[in-house]
Amino acid sequence: MSDADDLFPAFCIGQHETDRVLPITTQIVQRAHESNYDMLTYPVTTSHFHTRVLSVLSSHLATLDKPTLDASGTMGTTQNTKFPVIPPLSTADTHLSPNEAMSQLVGVTSSWIDLCSPDPLIADLSRQVLMMEVAYAAFCGLGYLLIPGPKLHHGGMHSDGVAYYARVIQDALATGPYIHFHIWLKMVDNVDLEVDQMGDLAPLARKEFLLDADNNEQSPKIDPFGTWDAWDVIRRTCKYHSRLVVALCLPKHLPQPSVQSRWHSEPVRLLTVDAGTFIKNQKGYPVLSKGHQSLISRLMRLRTPPWIILCDIGPIPGVEGSEDAEGDRGAATAEFPSLAQAVSSNKKHHDPTPHLSYMRNLQQKQPPRTAIERFGVGYQDYLQAPLQPLTVNLESITYEVFEKDPIKYEWYERAVAQALTDWAAQKKPTSNPDGRVVVAVVGAGRGPLVTRALRASAQTGVAIDIWVVEKNQNAFVLLQRHNQTIWEGKVNLVHSDMRSWRGPERKQAPNNEEGETTPTTHSTVDILISELLGSFADNELSPECLDGVTHLLHPTHGISIPASYTAHLSPISAPKLHADVMSQSVSNPAAPETPYVVMLHAIDFLSTNASTNTSTNPPSDPVPLIQTAWQFAHPNRDIPAPSHHSLSNSHNVRHTRLVFPCPDRGVCHGLAGYFETVLYKNVELSTNPVTMEAKSANMISWFPIYFPLKNPLNVPDNSEVIVTMFRQTDNRKVWYEWMVEVRCGKMRVGISDLHSSIKEGCLM
Amino acid sequence: MSDADDLFPAFCIGQHETDRVLPITTQIVQRAHESNYDMLTYPVTTSHFHTRVLSVLSSHLATLDKPTLDASGTMGTTQNTKFPVIPPLSTADTHLSPNEAMSQLVGVTSSWIDLCSPDPLIADLSRQVLMMEVAYAAFCGLGYLLIPGPKLHHGGMHSDGVAYYARVIQDALATGPYIHFHIWLKMVDNVDLEVDQMGDLAPLARKEFLLDADNNEQSPKIDPFGTWDAWDVIRRTCKYHSRLVVALCLPKHLPQPSVQSRWHSEPVRLLTVDAGTFIKNQKGYPVLSKGHQSLISRLMRLRTPPWIILCDIGPIPGVEGSEDAEGDRGAATAEFPSLAQAVSSNKKHHDPTPHLSYMRNLQQKQPPRTAIERFGVGYQDYLQAPLQPLTVNLESITYEVFEKDPIKYEWYERAVAQALTDWAAQKKPTSNPDGRVVVAVVGAGRGPLVTRALRASAQTGVAIDIWVVEKNQNAFVLLQRHNQTIWEGKVNLVHSDMRSWRGPERKQAPNNEEGETTPTTHSTVDILISELLGSFADNELSPECLDGVTHLLHPTHGISIPASYTAHLSPISAPKLHADVMSQSVSNPAAPETPYVVMLHAIDFLSTNASTNTSTNPPSDPVPLIQTAWQFAHPNRDIPAPSHHSLSNSHNVRHTRLVFPCPDRGVCHGLAGYFETVLYKNVELSTNPVTMEAKSANMISWFPIYFPLKNPLNVPDNSEVIVTMFRQTDNRKVWYEWMVEVRCGKMRVGISDLHSSIKEGCLM
Repeated sequence: MSDADDLFPAFCIGQHETDRVLPITTQIVQRAHESNYDMLTYPVTTSHFHTRVLSVLSSHLATLDKPTLDASGTMGTTQNTKFPVIPPLSTADTHLSPNEAMSQLVGVTSSWIDLCSPDPLIADLSRQVLMMEVAYAAFCGLGYLLIPGPKLHHGGMHSDGVAYYARVIQDALATGPYIHFHIWLKMVDNVDLEVDQMGDLAPLARKEFLLDADNNEQSPKIDPFGTWDAWDVIRRTCKYHSRLVVALCLPKHLPQPSVQSRWHSEPVRLLTVDAGTFIKNQKGYPVLSKGHQSLISRLMRLRTPPWIILCDIGPIPGVEGSEDAEGDRGAATAEFPSLAQAVSSNKKHHDPTPHLSYMRNLQQKQPPRTAIERFGVGYQDYLQAPLQPLTVNLESITYEVFEKDPIKYEWYERAVAQALTDWAAQKKPTSNPDGRVVVAVVGAGRGPLVTRALRASAQTGVAIDIWVVEKNQNAFVLLQRHNQTIWEGKVNLVHSDMRSWRGPERKQAPNNEEGETTPTTHSTVDILISELLGSFADNELSPECLDGVTHLLHPTHGISIPASYTAHLSPISAPKLHADVMSQSVSNPAAPETPYVVMLHAIDFLSTNASTNTSTNPPSDPVPLIQTAWQFAHPNRDIPAPSHHSLSNSHNVRHTRLVFPCPDRGVCHGLAGYFETVLYKNVELSTNPVTMEAKSANMISWFPIYFPLKNPLNVPDNSEVIVTMFRQTDNRKVWYEWMVEVRCGKMRVGISDLHSSIKEGCLM
Repeated sequence: MSDADDLFPAFCIGQHETDRVLPITTQIVQRAHESNYDMLTYPVTTSHFHTRVLSVLSSHLATLDKPTLDASGTMGTTQNTKFPVIPPLSTADTHLSPNEAMSQLVGVTSSWIDLCSPDPLIADLSRQVLMMEVAYAAFCGLGYLLIPGPKLHHGGMHSDGVAYYARVIQDALATGPYIHFHIWLKMVDNVDLEVDQMGDLAPLARKEFLLDADNNEQSPKIDPFGTWDAWDVIRRTCKYHSRLVVALCLPKHLPQPSVQSRWHSEPVRLLTVDAGTFIKNQKGYPVLSKGHQSLISRLMRLRTPPWIILCDIGPIPGVEGSEDAEGDRGAATAEFPSLAQAVSSNKKHHDPTPHLSYMRNLQQKQPPRTAIERFGVGYQDYLQAPLQPLTVNLESITYEVFEKDPIKYEWYERAVAQALTDWAAQKKPTSNPDGRVVVAVVGAGRGPLVTRALRASAQTGVAIDIWVVEKNQNAFVLLQRHNQTIWEGKVNLVHSDMRSWRGPERKQAPNNEEGETTPTTHSTVDILISELLGSFADNELSPECLDGVTHLLHPTHGISIPASYTAHLSPISAPKLHADVMSQSVSNPAAPETPYVVMLHAIDFLSTNASTNTSTNPPSDPVPLIQTAWQFAHPNRDIPAPSHHSLSNSHNVRHTRLVFPCPDRGVCHGLAGYFETVLYKNVELSTNPVTMEAKSANMISWFPIYFPLKNPLNVPDNSEVIVTMFRQTDNRKVWYEWMVEVRCGKMRVGISDLHSSIKEGCLM
């Protein structure tokens, strides 16, 4: 693996000034680059435009005979109304014009508007302002817009106006067809701050719409998921649009871990950090708290890491000639005391951008990628159809990828060694009359388990008679070659589907003189080794395949490795996967009923055992609740005898109904599936995130499975998600069916379709 | 209209015996017909089969080493399991065989099974029993099956097992592809009764699954919507299958009106009435209570009226030779005392089927169809695309249908008469210099409003100068004819789109000698009459059309008839409409985003002002809460002047956000839309079911409008449905957007897509 794979990608860092007044020239962009910034924000319009809109509003209010209050008193335009039209932008209204620096600029729309205003006049003017700004930004060729999120009303709550905000954003997406719209949101609503920001238009609003201000006194509790809730309405209204993303403002005090996790699952593409979010280290340099550092690290490992925008941390050096008030060299080196000491003892340098330097240093400090991260680069949250190994012959490269796993085959070797040791210690009879334990590797692929079985035999000193069965004729060529080159011809190779194999052949002495073919008999197998598991344990038909060879296993002593396996489930929020499934379903109607193999990354577990008790400090990360759906154990002695001309597979049907308590509200987009398997006794493999560290850390062979829902379900606070799942078979194929219900107390509040993957079923 | 239209259709009545033992021969069917029954039920299997299944179960339990209880203790088959297989049906297991009487038989599947059992063994045997019965019924060609509903568990509650029940029914629908499956349900769960029925298999169940029995002691309150809830899960799991319908058991004590309303909205195709549901009148004859009669009447007015099955009310006369224990002549005539007296004084007759006679009599007593019922025969719950009158020329028959309305034109005449009277009384100047009030009928069609305006003028003695504008050249031919034949040439006809009409022409004296065309000027209009409203008021672009002629109306005195109109909304449960929209969307992706004109019938209003106080006796019918979305008033003097080369239509944009409290749980499939209009002062038309009786009873011109939801939303008890709706325009067309949210307390529990009819928008 190359070193480049290990390198953590560079942070993309920009600079934002709330009151940027100068036009941004290509020279300024050049200066910013020289200071190590990657980009700059740019207000789309000027204060001149703000003033002009206020005067349009004032003069309209002056001409009104009487307020056009609804008869019903409800919000909205329900009667004949006429709003003033803001005249088109003129040259004083904007400094922006198309130039070569456009790709390094993020446009910022005006924050003095309020699309959610209960006053329809203010809401309509705000809509006009935003749409004018979007249209002009699109004309100039800006690729990125930062749009202040919906304003709070009703004493710090998101109001009904969010629906209207969302509808305007939908129009904006159509007006700027090449623009990525970043909705600028706080992690958690902060009432005090919001009240400060409000009201550039509000003071001019008519008093019948100013009910909000009066209600402010009750000072409500902050709703930790209130901002997320508003975002959910916006992106839902806009149908999970791919150009609608989040710009997240890092607050000084981070919210509880469950809120951080939620944002981690959303498309956060910008991260804004105010000067006030930095703290000072002992030397007075700006640094971020451990909590902030770890949140940034986590977000930076997303498939598309967010860009970072430093807000109001001082001017671009050389642009206005002013010095940074922060004083001496910044915090960049604050956490490397030895280096910092070296620098501070050499006070010749003055760092004009200490916040930026700190962020660049933070980038350097990112831990290198783990094995699974390196392995999964580019695969995070990428949907793959599961393998059909029974009907499709795998290619060599696919085997090679699997064989790279640093854990899986090691664990298999341990399991075989232990089984052989036990066999010998218990003095069990062997199926081969010569006393060797008969080991069969079925579905051997290119043979990694053969090598391990031979090693286990050598290591334990227990002799084996090894049989290797593979149906893929291409892989079989390699097996023959390996037998010559690696296995010293010790291996008995059988080119066959394991289900039609008749067992190890035992030649008899010729019994007549006419030279007839030597008759053969078949012995049983003592230890049957297979690696047929899929991401959801049984989804690649391990049960059906092993049932097909179980009759060859010794009826009392026979051992199957793996001995058993279980499928595990948990409901998740996965907005990116949902959007991808929806876009696939345009061309493939079966897309939302297909289970996908996917390296789950930007997801949030809805059901957790989190201690919502925030008194623990620091609050612990929520632990997902992942439950067992069902189990298969081998050898299965309960297989019905073949009858009625066909072997029934009904004994491999399973169903389950699992209840998942969900402490915090969210949206359920689907189910994450994992597996655990007991290879032999205490040798286990697990992809279940709760147990994988303990059972088989660093295993990379399997990504989880994802069962989507056609339509996301809202999950309220303190509710239950109930999953009903079936493993079905019609004796020709196997498929899954799944259905999700949401309950609050005893009341059903949501229910999904019964989804079925029968069209994408796994053929037997 | 023919008398046949007035006739109430015949009831279809059958007979059911719980313990029917004889095979049903064609002779028995013949006897039943002679007794006036239309059909009979028939058990698919015999008690022999029951006994055989019990012995399969007993011998399996005897062979079990130990109970196969899940490790997790949760319900379902989660581990390797093997269930006994019931051997195929033999001749003693069923009396049913294919014969000519099949079309008069309703098969009944066994009630001693329990598909919901928490014991997976019982659940699996029950599944096998049902599937064997369905397969045999399908083989015999039965068209109808009555399937006992899911059994109660957990102390009289529907259990998690309903999901499994539903899954088996889904298989049954595939196994019997020509069978209608009637799920036999109570209106409300009755705990006592259910406990009696349970347990044919249960006593054999293993004790670890008999937790239910122990929990029974807590004697829970009956959940009035519990049975409906179970039905909702079943039909939802089966994707609103058209062959999955309800057989409803009429209980002795009817549930609250809201529960009755709910069932009225579901596909109730069978109504079963037990002997015990009948009461005895003074003469001892079996009759039904007033409440039962009225519920039956209501259900019988559905598009597909249910069949009625009388259960255990005595044998078919002549089949077993036994007499009905009821004694004398039945209750058939009980409510016609004069007739009854005549009969009882002549006691020669003995009625062997008094319950049947009563039902036949009830049929005779059904009130004749109302005007709107006659008009709507065949249109109940039938989806129609709204008219596009601006871009499509209507056909004569369409006008004719509208002109048949007994109320609408009468009310227009009253409005015009009152407006003319007021004009004269207030001595307003007229636009015609000769003193006649200038009246214009715009969009006159075949001229019904012209006739009414002329009558109003004659009746009030206020002279009018009448102008008639119509764009449809075909209708214009008829207008010319009417002017000759009916209107005595009094009418000035203008063939034009009203939006391009330049107003009444006033000829000037020739002003030169060269014989140039006489120049004309145009006067204003005093009273502008139009009938441009659609089912949702503004949905056929009345606002846009009238805006286009408003400049012709006298600037101070001009009157528009109608003066204003409002659109009204309410969330509804409409399972049939949902199923129809879903089936249309297979071929037309825009189907679930199209507003439909539909005569709403099998629907239930989710938001009501019902007094849930059941102490009132009898409890009053729930009154739906129908709210005003928005209003248009004419003439609209606020229309912006044409500018930028096109007339902006943005003043006709509307939006609203309405909160609907919902006392009882349900499923929201869409929104019902209505309108009200003020023609002039207190002369109003309404299709709003709450106000139509008072404002314009018996008006038939408009069916309601239905805005579907792509995905139904669950509405819990005591929740709120919040509707956000937009009337949008891009200056070329008009469309609607709608979104529904469901809240419990402050918590969002469901949210729909933002639906948009832009693809089916109404062209301007």
